[in-house]
Amino acid sequence: MKLRSPGVTVGVVGGGQLGRMLGEAGSPLGIELLVSDPTPECPASLVARDQVVGAFDDEETIYELGERADYLTFEIELADPDVLEAVEEETGTPVHPRPETLRMIQDKLVQKERLSEAGIPVPAYEAVDSAAELREALDDLGYPAMLKAREGGYDGRGNVLVESPEDVETAFEAIQGPAMVEEFVDYDRELAVIGCKGDGETDTFPVTETIHREEILRETVSPARTDGQTRERAREVATEILDVMAGRGVYGIELFERADGEILLNEIAPRPHNSGHWTIEGCHTSQFEQHLRAVTGLPLGATDRREPTALANILGDVDTRQDAELSGVEDVLRTDTVSLHWYGKREVYNLRKMGHITSVGSEPDSVLSLVREVRDWLTFRE
Amino acid sequence: MKLRSPGVTVGVVGGGQLGRMLGEAGSPLGIELLVSDPTPECPASLVARDQVVGAFDDEETIYELGERADYLTFEIELADPDVLEAVEEETGTPVHPRPETLRMIQDKLVQKERLSEAGIPVPAYEAVDSAAELREALDDLGYPAMLKAREGGYDGRGNVLVESPEDVETAFEAIQGPAMVEEFVDYDRELAVIGCKGDGETDTFPVTETIHREEILRETVSPARTDGQTRERAREVATEILDVMAGRGVYGIELFERADGEILLNEIAPRPHNSGHWTIEGCHTSQFEQHLRAVTGLPLGATDRREPTALANILGDVDTRQDAELSGVEDVLRTDTVSLHWYGKREVYNLRKMGHITSVGSEPDSVLSLVREVRDWLTFRE
Repeated sequence: MKLRSPGVTVGVVGGGQLGRMLGEAGSPLGIELLVSDPTPECPASLVARDQVVGAFDDEETIYELGERADYLTFEIELADPDVLEAVEEETGTPVHPRPETLRMIQDKLVQKERLSEAGIPVPAYEAVDSAAELREALDDLGYPAMLKAREGGYDGRGNVLVESPEDVETAFEAIQGPAMVEEFVDYDRELAVIGCKGDGETDTFPVTETIHREEILRETVSPARTDGQTRERAREVATEILDVMAGRGVYGIELFERADGEILLNEIAPRPHNSGHWTIEGCHTSQFEQHLRAVTGLPLGATDRREPTALANILGDVDTRQDAELSGVEDVLRTDTVSLHWYGKREVYNLRKMGHITSVGSEPDSVLSLVREVRDWLTFRE
Repeated sequence: MKLRSPGVTVGVVGGGQLGRMLGEAGSPLGIELLVSDPTPECPASLVARDQVVGAFDDEETIYELGERADYLTFEIELADPDVLEAVEEETGTPVHPRPETLRMIQDKLVQKERLSEAGIPVPAYEAVDSAAELREALDDLGYPAMLKAREGGYDGRGNVLVESPEDVETAFEAIQGPAMVEEFVDYDRELAVIGCKGDGETDTFPVTETIHREEILRETVSPARTDGQTRERAREVATEILDVMAGRGVYGIELFERADGEILLNEIAPRPHNSGHWTIEGCHTSQFEQHLRAVTGLPLGATDRREPTALANILGDVDTRQDAELSGVEDVLRTDTVSLHWYGKREVYNLRKMGHITSVGSEPDSVLSLVREVRDWLTFRE
């Protein structure tokens, strides 16, 4: 392989913040992005060579991506595996991760079945297609339990906690469709590992602790504040999961650390993941650079952590959808070791991911406290 | 100031590698670039919102930049200060650094005079407008000495070493125009400091040692391998120089460390500089982010070095101008701690700056050895 200009073009289905950070990472490698997104001037368009405006599952749009790009990937699970397969077939442009991986992951039930069969430790679960089946399943699994729509969930949408037998009907109505129910895992911590699958090689980034509220990721800190053996086990499980995945790229692997120390798989995203944004400042290679290396068949980069690193998301804190105007930025920019990442979204609504801040430091607790404090200086309110 | 999307737009005269790295740095801050460059699809165009195709001194082109941008800056000294002044006047879009600073720096004689008057230590120099004047000046300054064209020099072009009285005629003919001659400084090391001038604040990045061959920068290492007192003195001199400069932005300040330990100014570039590229991996804030913060009036970021860092330029190693095809990239990408930066230039010629690699490490000598070794794996030859 020789480096040329114009360089290799990667077609990316989706042009949100993940696409934007892919673009920022691609430029130093001479990798050019072509993104497709329904929103003109989407976040990634700033750092992409061009944008094709169209829906994530629109055949014509994805066909144009395939025609113009050397490789195809996606940064959103709403990409359509059938369309991707057809476009690969027609244009000869390889898709990574493989469409069948996306299809398997899109259906949470199939995902759990496949991984469970492969010996990956997962929480106990059952498929449920009616309120009656849900009630029956809960006789086995006990209360509380997590009811999940098989498809279309994102950032906690599509998940409902069933706390008692009285909640069964309402919970199932909220999901409206094929679902699965999962034992409520009594976990000490949520962990995440970015797994990397390259051309004949795999690797994992250091284990990250993720902190959610209302099922939305709020902060991450790496190293995760657990013992070394647990961190090692989490990377082991992630490596086993990578064996099940078909296609090159990075995979966001969310795990539970149970009170008894066991690691259980929560969910997988076949793309760069919020739990890996800290790698931009925290590691020699970021998850975004790693994804582009993997997809284009370049060697994977070193995943070593440079320093303990924490991240806090900048989420919408407004009641109504409105033009985004973030206050408090100057104070954040004045803070040593804190880096700002703004996603370039025009509008904000409650809990929308608008950006994040990262800080490196010498100690996980203190660097996490710092990003929490600094993040709280920021607001979209008047 | 509130952060919005679309964000602040910075118009940049010049769309080469400096513009490209400005674009990479602007995106996380929500700062969008509009670049002007005569070459369509110039390196910076990949990560800019848009490019205006036109000459660096073309009034219409720069006027369009001024009309569409919130701030104007330049990444190449070929920008025209008169045009920039006129466009600022017509469009109201502020230019940083100030056009008068660019004008002063473009004329090496005026630059030396102004800085010398301000008490900055500079090598002994004299203005020379003919071979006869040059011969006379050299009676005072002695041989060897450096003859420099007052305007238009870049990467060693426009500089001629005059080694003996026999060289005087040939040297002056090579320059062809108003010139200055400077004592040949018997230096131990060349140092560089990126000075930062913000809105009512100044700062300097840690001192870098620069290593040139054939007057082209080959490698840098920070910290510079000299004593702490000398490094401190270099930052002092840089701070004094910033007082003389009008306008916000970063300034590449090249210095000599004389055998007796004294620091002398060599030259100033009113823009991000090759001696500061290592800050991307090496510091909490890169010189590119810092330049954009400064130009747009945001607070300056922390300039602390994270780790000792070395850089090696990837230069053209071919005899004739040709399409650029770089071999050896895979091995470089496999090397832990090494980061690749490709500038996206289509053609290569001998000694053209095509990219660079950076490595962080624990010790300046070893990290410098590493980047030199790794850089030598790369070639544009068949």
